[in-house]
Amino acid sequence: MIVLLTDFGLDGPYTGQVQALLHQQAPGVPVVSLFADLAAFDIQGAAYLLPPYTQGFVPGTVFLCVVDPGVGSRRPGVVVRADGRWFVGPNEGLFAILARRVGQIECWQLPESGSASASFHARDVFAPVAARLARDGRETGERVSAETMLKPDWPDDLFRVVYIDRYGNAITGVRASAMPDEAVLKTGEFLLPRANTFSDVATGAAFWYRNANGLVEIAVNRGRADRELGLQVGTPFRK
Amino acid sequence: MIVLLTDFGLDGPYTGQVQALLHQQAPGVPVVSLFADLAAFDIQGAAYLLPPYTQGFVPGTVFLCVVDPGVGSRRPGVVVRADGRWFVGPNEGLFAILARRVGQIECWQLPESGSASASFHARDVFAPVAARLARDGRETGERVSAETMLKPDWPDDLFRVVYIDRYGNAITGVRASAMPDEAVLKTGEFLLPRANTFSDVATGAAFWYRNANGLVEIAVNRGRADRELGLQVGTPFRK
Amino acid sequence: MIVLLTDFGLDGPYTGQVQALLHQQAPGVPVVSLFADLAAFDIQGAAYLLPPYTQGFVPGTVFLCVVDPGVGSRRPGVVVRADGRWFVGPNEGLFAILARRVGQIECWQLPESGSASASFHARDVFAPVAARLARDGRETGERVSAETMLKPDWPDDLFRVVYIDRYGNAITGVRASAMPDEAVLKTGEFLLPRANTFSDVATGAAFWYRNANGLVEIAVNRGRADRELGLQVGTPFRK
Repeated sequence: MIVLLTDFGLDGPYTGQVQALLHQQAPGVPVVSLFADLAAFDIQGAAYLLPPYTQGFVPGTVFLCVVDPGVGSRRPGVVVRADGRWFVGPNEGLFAILARRVGQIECWQLPESGSASASFHARDVFAPVAARLARDGRETGERVSAETMLKPDWPDDLFRVVYIDRYGNAITGVRASAMPDEAVLKTGEFLLPRANTFSDVATGAAFWYRNANGLVEIAVNRGRADRELGLQVGTPFRK
Repeated sequence: MIVLLTDFGLDGPYTGQVQALLHQQAPGVPVVSLFADLAAFDIQGAAYLLPPYTQGFVPGTVFLCVVDPGVGSRRPGVVVRADGRWFVGPNEGLFAILARRVGQIECWQLPESGSASASFHARDVFAPVAARLARDGRETGERVSAETMLKPDWPDDLFRVVYIDRYGNAITGVRASAMPDEAVLKTGEFLLPRANTFSDVATGAAFWYRNANGLVEIAVNRGRADRELGLQVGTPFRK
Repeated sequence: MIVLLTDFGLDGPYTGQVQALLHQQAPGVPVVSLFADLAAFDIQGAAYLLPPYTQGFVPGTVFLCVVDPGVGSRRPGVVVRADGRWFVGPNEGLFAILARRVGQIECWQLPESGSASASFHARDVFAPVAARLARDGRETGERVSAETMLKPDWPDDLFRVVYIDRYGNAITGVRASAMPDEAVLKTGEFLLPRANTFSDVATGAAFWYRNANGLVEIAVNRGRADRELGLQVGTPFRK
């Protein structure tokens, strides 16, 4: 399976162009978009979503990951093999938290691609590599150290909102396992206690909980946390 | 084929997580999202969309249906076999109108799933069942009476908007077959006569018509009925 | 492969209904949505997107193209074979620029379909034809002259915005090959010089460039050109 994590959106041409190429070059391999609405330009936020949202997939899954504010700038693409799963994308921090947390990791640098368009590396560079990995299950490029992916100054948990979902819930870069159950989160003027799930609090009440992928998520029961608490991607909080 | 009717949206992770699981557990079965933007929390509205939008599918089709305001509350999931098609989802009214209208219906209660996440039953409970139904074509759980799905106090036709489409057209919970052709609908200050289709009225004119799935739909020729008539999901009308 | 270019959106029922029918009638053929958010009613804009965004696909690809402001009006559907690729859709200008630019072209008129719904020809007329073309690779209807598709009064390049992408970039109907590199575009009060790509200009700077499909595109580095320059589909510009 090839799984896309991007900021391309689905309606417009970019995801479709990538999907078409993948179907062409890896026939019969299912292609699934996991995130198409990662915040544009926010590599760091995406880096904290990557491990919890990819860890449930079987070995051999290929993740094509693109959040790419520096469109057209000369930056090396990379292939990562982490605990048996493949990741392909620009090497600007997107895989930094993954590399820090996984057990086994290998890393290959992609060659410069002279014929690629200046602006759509996902289609012209990364997608053909993802298709080849899905077909052949091995990489043959130049091995490089996984060190090139690390961002030593980034924290282990990121105390800000990294994603707003369709219901207005705010997913954060903090693992729930790193947060005591009795922690009360503070954002702006709001104090947020923990709940097990939505139905454990009153209608309209704000709270945090361990979401289905193990991250701290801020929500309002039957309401939109983003609007009611003034949250957006980047909003900080503390405990 | 497995068909999704949800309020998950497509861009974010939820539909992708469900699709990935379905491809894994029911390889080779096409997965199609029919509705990903059902109004959050509006089980009743979705219940009136379900029969007209699923009746054209061939027997054996599996519909995974989730509109779930009570996330995390303890409610029984259900499998329904209605005129040869399968439906899986929470049993809180979503299948009430379907059950009222179909010829043959059988119903099974899903067991409690202790290991499921508290918040994402669609992925952890309903999707594995849908995959199994698509593979095996039979259910083996505990049979229950279809009575458990009924909502006796809900009307046969629901005189309010249940869905706004991309063009701003307002789909209602009323079957066109239950509405005389000469009926003039009233909503707010507006009077809406029937037309056969868009091109039968002047540009900018508001009207109702029998949509391609047999429901009464309110539209404005080359305009947006939602904005021009002040309609949203829940807006009532009368004849 | 069957590729969709429509104004249906993906979340709502229309794309899903078409996809389901295609999977049913052309089993095993991948279906990809390339554009689901073409501007409603803007046939002309879509006509200038069609050639650059379909030319990279292999011969035999079937494009189902629907932008359809005259829903329900009596207009002939058409099948086009252009340089080995198939196109199906309403014949109201959508294929005019394609027909002008391709080498080999053949054209068939679709018969009236008496049983089709008055409002959803894409599902009831065009999709079954697309499925048949993907299966059989040949057309058997009534040949008509490609002249019927032409719009002789439309220019070779369209100096207005035809599409806004997810990042706020404005794609135009002008081929970059028709624009000298030193051209400075004017729109409203803004002057836009050419750049090779985003990273070649300062953050916040507006420019035009040759996009990954060969069209002139107006962008702002790390910003939204639509908001910052007041652009929307239809906004004219000149050089």
